[in-house]
Amino acid sequence: MNLKGQHILSTKQFDKESLISLFQLADKMQEILKKSKAGKQDMTMEGKLMATLFFEPSTRTRFSFETAMQRLGGRVISNADMMGTSSWKKHETLEDTGKVVSQMADVIVMRHPEAGSVKRLASASDVPVLNAGDGPSEHPSQALLDVYTIWKSKGKLDGLTIGMSGDSKYGRVPHSQCDLLKHFDCKFIFVSPEALKMPEAIVKELRETGHEIRETENLGESIGEMDVIACTRIQEERFSSEAEYKKYAGVYVLDNTLMQKAKTDAIVLHPLPRVNEISPEVDKDPRVKYFEQVGNGVAIRMALLVSVLG
Amino acid sequence: MNLKGQHILSTKQFDKESLISLFQLADKMQEILKKSKAGKQDMTMEGKLMATLFFEPSTRTRFSFETAMQRLGGRVISNADMMGTSSWKKHETLEDTGKVVSQMADVIVMRHPEAGSVKRLASASDVPVLNAGDGPSEHPSQALLDVYTIWKSKGKLDGLTIGMSGDSKYGRVPHSQCDLLKHFDCKFIFVSPEALKMPEAIVKELRETGHEIRETENLGESIGEMDVIACTRIQEERFSSEAEYKKYAGVYVLDNTLMQKAKTDAIVLHPLPRVNEISPEVDKDPRVKYFEQVGNGVAIRMALLVSVLG
Amino acid sequence: MNLKGQHILSTKQFDKESLISLFQLADKMQEILKKSKAGKQDMTMEGKLMATLFFEPSTRTRFSFETAMQRLGGRVISNADMMGTSSWKKHETLEDTGKVVSQMADVIVMRHPEAGSVKRLASASDVPVLNAGDGPSEHPSQALLDVYTIWKSKGKLDGLTIGMSGDSKYGRVPHSQCDLLKHFDCKFIFVSPEALKMPEAIVKELRETGHEIRETENLGESIGEMDVIACTRIQEERFSSEAEYKKYAGVYVLDNTLMQKAKTDAIVLHPLPRVNEISPEVDKDPRVKYFEQVGNGVAIRMALLVSVLG
Repeated sequence: MNLKGQHILSTKQFDKESLISLFQLADKMQEILKKSKAGKQDMTMEGKLMATLFFEPSTRTRFSFETAMQRLGGRVISNADMMGTSSWKKHETLEDTGKVVSQMADVIVMRHPEAGSVKRLASASDVPVLNAGDGPSEHPSQALLDVYTIWKSKGKLDGLTIGMSGDSKYGRVPHSQCDLLKHFDCKFIFVSPEALKMPEAIVKELRETGHEIRETENLGESIGEMDVIACTRIQEERFSSEAEYKKYAGVYVLDNTLMQKAKTDAIVLHPLPRVNEISPEVDKDPRVKYFEQVGNGVAIRMALLVSVLG
Repeated sequence: MNLKGQHILSTKQFDKESLISLFQLADKMQEILKKSKAGKQDMTMEGKLMATLFFEPSTRTRFSFETAMQRLGGRVISNADMMGTSSWKKHETLEDTGKVVSQMADVIVMRHPEAGSVKRLASASDVPVLNAGDGPSEHPSQALLDVYTIWKSKGKLDGLTIGMSGDSKYGRVPHSQCDLLKHFDCKFIFVSPEALKMPEAIVKELRETGHEIRETENLGESIGEMDVIACTRIQEERFSSEAEYKKYAGVYVLDNTLMQKAKTDAIVLHPLPRVNEISPEVDKDPRVKYFEQVGNGVAIRMALLVSVLG
Repeated sequence: MNLKGQHILSTKQFDKESLISLFQLADKMQEILKKSKAGKQDMTMEGKLMATLFFEPSTRTRFSFETAMQRLGGRVISNADMMGTSSWKKHETLEDTGKVVSQMADVIVMRHPEAGSVKRLASASDVPVLNAGDGPSEHPSQALLDVYTIWKSKGKLDGLTIGMSGDSKYGRVPHSQCDLLKHFDCKFIFVSPEALKMPEAIVKELRETGHEIRETENLGESIGEMDVIACTRIQEERFSSEAEYKKYAGVYVLDNTLMQKAKTDAIVLHPLPRVNEISPEVDKDPRVKYFEQVGNGVAIRMALLVSVLG
């Protein structure tokens, strides 16, 4: 699959072959990153300009894309807070905004709290648009960096048992991870309270494509089988009230006691920021990959930029 | 007229000769833009630093200037929301801010809601200051890109009939356009409701400099005579109450029916964002230039930067 | 003292020798600045990326660091308003933020309203962190640029009489200046109202290290003895009520009448922004260095970046 000139809106755009190609490209990007940190600027994106349009603030994701573009020698125009600082929000359709910004920049990175918003802007853009999160819907570069981290750490994706712990109902992270991992021969263990179970449609799709799935409420009993322990935050903004959020926040906390039950070659993922799902005492454990994920995220976004800009 | 080292505060700084020179320079900038998009970075502004000080948010205008500077190889320090994020507003005079920022940057781009504010800051600056809009007063680079778009599309400015539709009373866009077009042999048709008519002083000056003017409330009857259909938004912030704004918003809507009455070689301008002055169905009409204006705006701002920094 | 790979958190990290080395390096940076303004980009920081994390807005300080990095050929990712635009603040510890951002950038510049906050973030960072102000506590680059300006203007630091006028109690600027100047053979005159006197601990330390100190409430009587007249603002945010602030604001105002009593080769410093501590009529006096300090601040920050990144 050739991504040149394409928008990156959804994890559904990727199949097994295109994922492996992207991960191999991300590995090459790691070399460029190393050289940049050592003082040698890459110029793959010479002359190119990226616009970041964040209708919902996310410093982490914005920094990651802006790092990616600049490590490749490109340049950036940035709005970290479109809702707060742009008069457009009062007047302009997303389509007009897309058309206008695409007259200035060569690629657009956009985040917005509403599902489908990025697709709308992209529909009128003359340049590729990368979805950096459209509310509860998609955040493809996050899912790609998660699966890239597994591929890079374990050396493979087939034959792994993937555990996902946390909010499997509202969390877009586990949904997107499943969307990508379904292309591989993985076994899944979903760990969540009954009220936050993985949606039936996802479970059904995974089963129909031949994947073994176990659902449990008990992390301690299942952690020992996992090659990958993918934790997610219970996100307050996905609940209707603070009371309902409080009911589930902190129901799974990964600490050293739990880690003793985990495989010696397991890896621990988390999209960050964490609240209390992972105790800081775990940070020193060599199986922990969540800070390494940040660097991998830069490499994946570099790979995406190189792919769409050719 | 040599603009090197000058502030650009007002459309009144330009005469016929300097306008044509600037437009010719902007045409050269279009070549640099094309090369930049194709991956070849221009370095005309090597080593130079531009500061953007936006006391009133305007992502479109800020992006345009920052794109211009970076396409030329310069660099940017940026404050998109001086009122919201700068502690200066509480304490510091605009003069002190100008003096201070000019010790860091080589050129300053400033927007502010108050008329005369940019001139005040510029009075103490050691480097050129470009006015990116000072409230109801001036926004010279916008007027320049409008007239540049006419010049570029029609191949000339003399002998044209310019129609201006919308708020001719409060809108700084039509006022500034008149300030520039008065240097050319144009005929004007001002289309606005009685309460939003072009100020008498502007009409008088145009008549005294030999221009034919017609004022009308009817767009449909006059559109057929126009070589240029310059639409503007009825801006809510120029009215004292929402009720008064609502009375005039949407009084002229350019749609395909109206466009059928327009000349086959007419062009349609709008500074954007539009609310409902132009129906989206018109966007595909080849006579539409409002998205092309965005790219022309980058070229004009590149030309201004090159002119003042020499 | 080798600063390579070090955090710059406090003025207490510097001794006489390291200060002079830094000032000599800053002088070299002035040459790079001159070349940059003349169109020749330095590339000492080629490939390097600086992140600015401002949890408290300060356009002046942020611009100065971003100017420094870019004049050296480095690049920047920037958050001017972490409290307003980052969702991290709700969830993430400063330590996690430090760890995360240090996976992306090569150096971090941070400002925060709480004392000790920058040290906390730095403790988990994998890259050098520069303190750009942690509330009432420290702002080392400001003190360094102040003393650098004295060194540069007077050609020496030993043998000078340093006057400090304003809020000596809450002001971190005079405290930090003393922390650096104590390494040199200076005499001090502290001018402040009784309620805003220099803390006893600082006076004691200076006396114990052999410095002569005079404390007075009268600027007019003492100004004639000063080689350096270092003024500071009475900062509203350091007082518990507006009433208490108003009591002291404007108690010392440097004007031309006072300047007539000053030495002909004295110099006047102020960290800016000023409110009314210095009358604008003084600006033209050749002894005034407060605008020159801004340019010196860029040079000092360039020197710090070069020192920590090697």
